[in-house]
Amino acid sequence: MNDPDAQMIAKKAVVLLSGGLDSVTVLALAREQGFSCHALSMQYGQRHGVELEAARRVAAAQGAVEHLIAPLALDAFGGSALTDRRIQVPEQASEGIPVTYVPARNTIFLALALGWAEALGARDLFVGVNAVDYSGYPDCRPAFIEAFERLANLATKAGVEGDRFRVHAPLIDMSKAQIIREGVRLGVDYSLTISCYQADTRGRACGVCDSCRLRAQGFAEAGVPDPTPYRPARRR
Amino acid sequence: MNDPDAQMIAKKAVVLLSGGLDSVTVLALAREQGFSCHALSMQYGQRHGVELEAARRVAAAQGAVEHLIAPLALDAFGGSALTDRRIQVPEQASEGIPVTYVPARNTIFLALALGWAEALGARDLFVGVNAVDYSGYPDCRPAFIEAFERLANLATKAGVEGDRFRVHAPLIDMSKAQIIREGVRLGVDYSLTISCYQADTRGRACGVCDSCRLRAQGFAEAGVPDPTPYRPARRR
Repeated sequence: MNDPDAQMIAKKAVVLLSGGLDSVTVLALAREQGFSCHALSMQYGQRHGVELEAARRVAAAQGAVEHLIAPLALDAFGGSALTDRRIQVPEQASEGIPVTYVPARNTIFLALALGWAEALGARDLFVGVNAVDYSGYPDCRPAFIEAFERLANLATKAGVEGDRFRVHAPLIDMSKAQIIREGVRLGVDYSLTISCYQADTRGRACGVCDSCRLRAQGFAEAGVPDPTPYRPARRR
Repeated sequence: MNDPDAQMIAKKAVVLLSGGLDSVTVLALAREQGFSCHALSMQYGQRHGVELEAARRVAAAQGAVEHLIAPLALDAFGGSALTDRRIQVPEQASEGIPVTYVPARNTIFLALALGWAEALGARDLFVGVNAVDYSGYPDCRPAFIEAFERLANLATKAGVEGDRFRVHAPLIDMSKAQIIREGVRLGVDYSLTISCYQADTRGRACGVCDSCRLRAQGFAEAGVPDPTPYRPARRR
């Protein structure tokens, strides 16, 4: 991508980028497929605001042509441990859909990605959802992605005119260990990413929330040293 | 609804409210059906910011229990005459989908309404889309609404658990004149609403944009005096 002409003719894609492990791997995969990547992050009143710092770092490190952080007042809605400080982040695995579920989050994020994509002339959306080690969220399943793609092509001027949108969810069938191996192959520096639901202001992970446990287990299974900065243990 | 007990047991609904003629009629219809209505408006960088003032007025006048205005940086995306000041609002009817189309707008608005609804415990969403006198927007068609409802029930914890969401689009098959007659029956004061794409800071309509023309024609066909405040004519 050092050739400016090659850069100019690359197809554009919008990549949802949280600053976590999964979405940076998706960005690296989209780049490998030759897309010119417009990264989109949301400032949605999440507890873990340091993840937006991580998103900025990985967008730059992975060669996104642009990185937009859109404000989104999901904290006004409440209903999740990630946006409502009155609900505690659980430190043990639970049955069913956990309290860290943010109502309709991936629908909202993909809807915004779709709007930006249509305005940019991009027809490809990338999202790092994962149905294997996925914490039980309904909006991380293949049926959800397919339904969104179908909606996108009914909802838009481009879709109606026959210029179809595609929603890429390349991690959907991968385990956390497979995702990490894929990222390592692509040269992703996972020390720049933050997955923890309650990282401290220096970006150090708690090591005990769902997201930390899945991530640590992924590094262990992949046989890759875990580069995550953890804060001093309380109960670990 | 003067009985406080009746109020307490009313089913909740989220109603998308723009401050225009259609959405206030939808709010009145939802109230007639006995819903306790949570009105949702978006501050999305639209040219016609006075419509949010109108939304506040009609939410109060029509007895919404709550009115939330959510910020949404659609102007960062551009791509529409309604959010990008470099694109002029057309003053004549055009072929195909007009430049006032905002990429994926109704997808984004419904996604946010869905998130709020799930957090509130509401299962009914109301939206004032209309496929008859509709300016040619793809996200105002029945197929779009059906696809969104399907998505909503795949995307959410409530939907997965069998507590289905319903997306109500009661105006979808109505002409503007029919909508106005329905509103008049329900006691809606249309002088509080703003439909114009380029109303002035006093909320006065231009009278020449697509939206003004459809509205004026609707009042004429309904045989209802048009209460719209127009600004002094330039080219009318």
